[in-house]
Amino acid sequence: MILKLATTVAKNEASALAEKAKAFHITYQGSEYLITSSSVKSTPEGLQGKVDKEWVFPNDMQLASREFQEETRTVRIGATEMGGNTKNTILIGGPCSVESEEQIQQSSALLKSLNLTTLRGGCFKPRTSPYSFQGLGLEGLKLLAKMREEHGLNVITEVRDATQVEQVIEYSDVVQIGAKAMYDQGILRACAKINKPVLLKRGFGTTLQEFVQAAEFILSGGNDQVILCERGIRTFETKTRFTLDLCGVAYLQEFTNLPIILDPSHALGFRYGIERLSQACVAMGIDGLLIEAHPDPSVAKSDAAQQLTHEQFIQLKEKITPVAKSVGYTIV
Amino acid sequence: MILKLATTVAKNEASALAEKAKAFHITYQGSEYLITSSSVKSTPEGLQGKVDKEWVFPNDMQLASREFQEETRTVRIGATEMGGNTKNTILIGGPCSVESEEQIQQSSALLKSLNLTTLRGGCFKPRTSPYSFQGLGLEGLKLLAKMREEHGLNVITEVRDATQVEQVIEYSDVVQIGAKAMYDQGILRACAKINKPVLLKRGFGTTLQEFVQAAEFILSGGNDQVILCERGIRTFETKTRFTLDLCGVAYLQEFTNLPIILDPSHALGFRYGIERLSQACVAMGIDGLLIEAHPDPSVAKSDAAQQLTHEQFIQLKEKITPVAKSVGYTIV
Amino acid sequence: MILKLATTVAKNEASALAEKAKAFHITYQGSEYLITSSSVKSTPEGLQGKVDKEWVFPNDMQLASREFQEETRTVRIGATEMGGNTKNTILIGGPCSVESEEQIQQSSALLKSLNLTTLRGGCFKPRTSPYSFQGLGLEGLKLLAKMREEHGLNVITEVRDATQVEQVIEYSDVVQIGAKAMYDQGILRACAKINKPVLLKRGFGTTLQEFVQAAEFILSGGNDQVILCERGIRTFETKTRFTLDLCGVAYLQEFTNLPIILDPSHALGFRYGIERLSQACVAMGIDGLLIEAHPDPSVAKSDAAQQLTHEQFIQLKEKITPVAKSVGYTIV
Amino acid sequence: MILKLATTVAKNEASALAEKAKAFHITYQGSEYLITSSSVKSTPEGLQGKVDKEWVFPNDMQLASREFQEETRTVRIGATEMGGNTKNTILIGGPCSVESEEQIQQSSALLKSLNLTTLRGGCFKPRTSPYSFQGLGLEGLKLLAKMREEHGLNVITEVRDATQVEQVIEYSDVVQIGAKAMYDQGILRACAKINKPVLLKRGFGTTLQEFVQAAEFILSGGNDQVILCERGIRTFETKTRFTLDLCGVAYLQEFTNLPIILDPSHALGFRYGIERLSQACVAMGIDGLLIEAHPDPSVAKSDAAQQLTHEQFIQLKEKITPVAKSVGYTIV
Repeated sequence: MILKLATTVAKNEASALAEKAKAFHITYQGSEYLITSSSVKSTPEGLQGKVDKEWVFPNDMQLASREFQEETRTVRIGATEMGGNTKNTILIGGPCSVESEEQIQQSSALLKSLNLTTLRGGCFKPRTSPYSFQGLGLEGLKLLAKMREEHGLNVITEVRDATQVEQVIEYSDVVQIGAKAMYDQGILRACAKINKPVLLKRGFGTTLQEFVQAAEFILSGGNDQVILCERGIRTFETKTRFTLDLCGVAYLQEFTNLPIILDPSHALGFRYGIERLSQACVAMGIDGLLIEAHPDPSVAKSDAAQQLTHEQFIQLKEKITPVAKSVGYTIV
Repeated sequence: MILKLATTVAKNEASALAEKAKAFHITYQGSEYLITSSSVKSTPEGLQGKVDKEWVFPNDMQLASREFQEETRTVRIGATEMGGNTKNTILIGGPCSVESEEQIQQSSALLKSLNLTTLRGGCFKPRTSPYSFQGLGLEGLKLLAKMREEHGLNVITEVRDATQVEQVIEYSDVVQIGAKAMYDQGILRACAKINKPVLLKRGFGTTLQEFVQAAEFILSGGNDQVILCERGIRTFETKTRFTLDLCGVAYLQEFTNLPIILDPSHALGFRYGIERLSQACVAMGIDGLLIEAHPDPSVAKSDAAQQLTHEQFIQLKEKITPVAKSVGYTIV
Repeated sequence: MILKLATTVAKNEASALAEKAKAFHITYQGSEYLITSSSVKSTPEGLQGKVDKEWVFPNDMQLASREFQEETRTVRIGATEMGGNTKNTILIGGPCSVESEEQIQQSSALLKSLNLTTLRGGCFKPRTSPYSFQGLGLEGLKLLAKMREEHGLNVITEVRDATQVEQVIEYSDVVQIGAKAMYDQGILRACAKINKPVLLKRGFGTTLQEFVQAAEFILSGGNDQVILCERGIRTFETKTRFTLDLCGVAYLQEFTNLPIILDPSHALGFRYGIERLSQACVAMGIDGLLIEAHPDPSVAKSDAAQQLTHEQFIQLKEKITPVAKSVGYTIV
Repeated sequence: MILKLATTVAKNEASALAEKAKAFHITYQGSEYLITSSSVKSTPEGLQGKVDKEWVFPNDMQLASREFQEETRTVRIGATEMGGNTKNTILIGGPCSVESEEQIQQSSALLKSLNLTTLRGGCFKPRTSPYSFQGLGLEGLKLLAKMREEHGLNVITEVRDATQVEQVIEYSDVVQIGAKAMYDQGILRACAKINKPVLLKRGFGTTLQEFVQAAEFILSGGNDQVILCERGIRTFETKTRFTLDLCGVAYLQEFTNLPIILDPSHALGFRYGIERLSQACVAMGIDGLLIEAHPDPSVAKSDAAQQLTHEQFIQLKEKITPVAKSVGYTIV
């Protein structure tokens, strides 16, 4: 359950109460909150008289629940806001992997020419084979940082495992937790302690319940800026790489208070249908869209089949803009 | 492979040649065609000199393939056309099951008031338990026929198994082959011999390849009016009833020439997200949308949780109309 | 719920009571039973005083439930018994498709040489493409009937759809309802009216609940000889054709009273691991094993990759015999 | 490809060659090997004349492939061997989580009384909710170490994420990489550098190809003692917790050279069928079985439903012993 403490309870008293009740303690929008397991259904011993408001839940989806907070959280990426009542759909572009300065400069130029603000690019690639390209690592992070400085872009990149979480946190504006790292408590707990938005991708074998619970690791640890990202689940269908779960998105929109970004590139795994799928995603009224684009996909070192050319990316933006408008959203 | 016979080959000669080559024979848009297994890669013995054009395929998706015919087939439901270059998205409404004359009259009135043309309603329900409501059967078919006469509506209803295929064919304007009957050759072969459109639903455990091959049963048997319907596949996620596979829809749009209708009601299984999902579907530029609505869902004899109220159906139409427009389509 | 009627209630009275209560009526082991939906939780109006015993269920798994009958049903195939306290594991062999008299004679000879009793072979093949071999149809059924006469073998073959259910019923000793036909009420209802065992295969996209409910169609219609067959479900894994669900088998053994046959050939889809998988199946203490074997798999017209050679089939029998013995069962 | 270097090439020269060829370098059974991506199909520049033997592969399953090494690797856990030609099936028991010294003493006593050698128990639990019991951590590791000293048991425990991999490596005899951590390169790379066996569990959404490729991370990094563990995959079936993939096991046994341990407890998720499933597993001729047992499952802090009582564990050992014998194996 969630307990909003009375304003008479100071922060350090709240902390002491949390320890006694074996609860999490966060400060959220100026108030102190304790969070226990959802199996607790009434005010714990010792908290009587110190609580302003209480929420009881049927399962461990608590801080992320619309029952706790009805409106979607507002998250700020640099100067751009999403969620809340902004009605913004952030179009995030860039290559699968940062491969060279020339490449990432071209990607940055593309975004600037379209008045877009946020650049994606992987540096530590969570490849499934040791014999594949593993990313540029720290060198890639520094290239991204350079793009931020030179072009004023926000940078989003992925943490692969807990051994480089500090580096990624340092160099990025939004920390991406990838589909394969989503259960990684080393990462989740580190991301709970930072003051930057976290883009949490759903694992391809992960239930919606587990997905939201992973967000609860971050939220209950003290970071209230979590963005959910659906990127396709693994099903029996193999003509497409994964299956984008828009029923799941409808569920998350209805029951959680977290902004939602969709990644159709990884879901389909092929260039051909990304435009139409992006139209579909945008028509749901979502907070962001993550699209892989590469100056020359034919030489890309990872995910070559699914990255758009820059021409296709420009056309995609043209196509989704009126769709967003038709549901009251703006592509930013 | 597909062989378009020379115009000098008459219909009955074509038929004889087909038998010799163990091929299917159809007349399509005024020409004679033979279709063999896709494992045949060159002109079969005895057909040399009698062929105008040939298509070789990597697998048994042949007549449905865009390599055979580049544009989407035009299908006519009553006075309404879909596919081709019509840019129409037909909104089909009605209850899960026909339950009574009063109910189906209300459904018909709803459609008429919205200038919609096509009424859905199940009469032979393919329930998974013998102890559930099994539908009104022939009595239901007669009620649908009455709606057609009284209101000028087109009627679409489902055939459950081969024992009532003739009845359903007789009473409906579009024959629906449901998800559980999709491999049923008794039904597929019967539907291949009729001059009515067939709405073929994808089985929830069916690959895209198998789905299109089921359409090939109908197409190679002589009926060229097949509409594909995606209605959700079964995955590990159980918060939603099924998972609507829009990656699969992108695949079908890219590689097949068949019109596509989506059924978000069965996919999600709950009322709450049908509106948003419908927006997503329509934004892909599809040929139709199948929505369950009931005058009073709380007393529905099947699928109570997912049927919209009439008010919600009216609002859904309002919401999807600008989305359709934003991608160049019209809701009809 | 299930209601066992008092011995004072005659069969025709039972029938009348069933109609009034909208219940199914069966005669089972000399007594009259009514079966309603599981949503009924107390004696229906008009039956008070006429009931000997009642069973209430949480869902529509009723007649198949061990709560209704604790011991596994005994089913007789010709002179061979399975289930009950027989501790028999029937090894059923034969080709995927009946292809010619010579082929099926060789299959029969193989079984006879191993003292086996039951021959399988498909005549109406539920292929997913119209361009594949569809089976010999009635001609195949007659060949199977000939094998029964000449060699005294029991014959098991598949019904594809409701259009040939009567033929298959007439010519076979056990009627097999295939994975793709499992929801077909035309078939299920026809099989409910016969006095022969029915082998019901689980659909590859079918939940255990739906699977057992399909059996309830047959049981509640009056045929108490239903055998369940697990043959692999469709999952994300594609190195193997399907995934044999032995957790599901453990569930069925624990909660249902129906004999269980396993089909590792269709599950794996390749010859190489059939022997080891068969050992695993047999070690669970099952009632039968269905194995595809062909005199020359390299020329088989269907499922060539998974059919064993006759040498491999002989070796398989040698290998599973001690495994069966180790769990107290006998291969027959 | 794999290249076995000539005996004239010393270790440090091999290392230099590897760097030039961007290949992995390992010493295996006294010889030097280089391993490149499987996309390399012929001797790389600069290695001509220095290679004794080469293996080319269709995909990145290389060191784990039976084409590289035909016989299963022998792995030693303490004094007990598995794999190779040992025909041993190691029965590993213990609780899901180490909860207290009293509990783990009872577990140890159980194993000793059955002449078993290897104790399992989780200390860092990869729970999906932050609000669940997360394990005793280091304190648990110390309890396990105490069991090793007092009872001479081998200890196997799980590393949750890269932040505690060093601790787990230090305290355990076999390092377990759990299903949720299987893609974690921080862990995989750390485990590649140690001289202890690694038990690698298949992710529940992981393909067989990815699973073996995760093992390649460890093997190509220099640790040749990898054991694969199948523990159930996530499918549409929810009556059971997961679906144990024995078809996948048949594939791994046929195509890889790694020993295989099965974990039916996590697959089924319930006590009732563990015994029968264990019989099935053992009948495949496997190298080990991982079974959760708890002195009092009703008070277990995790996985309460699936842990056996000690009485059930004793009976399980009795039941699987003759099954193992029937396929030529011994339970140790």
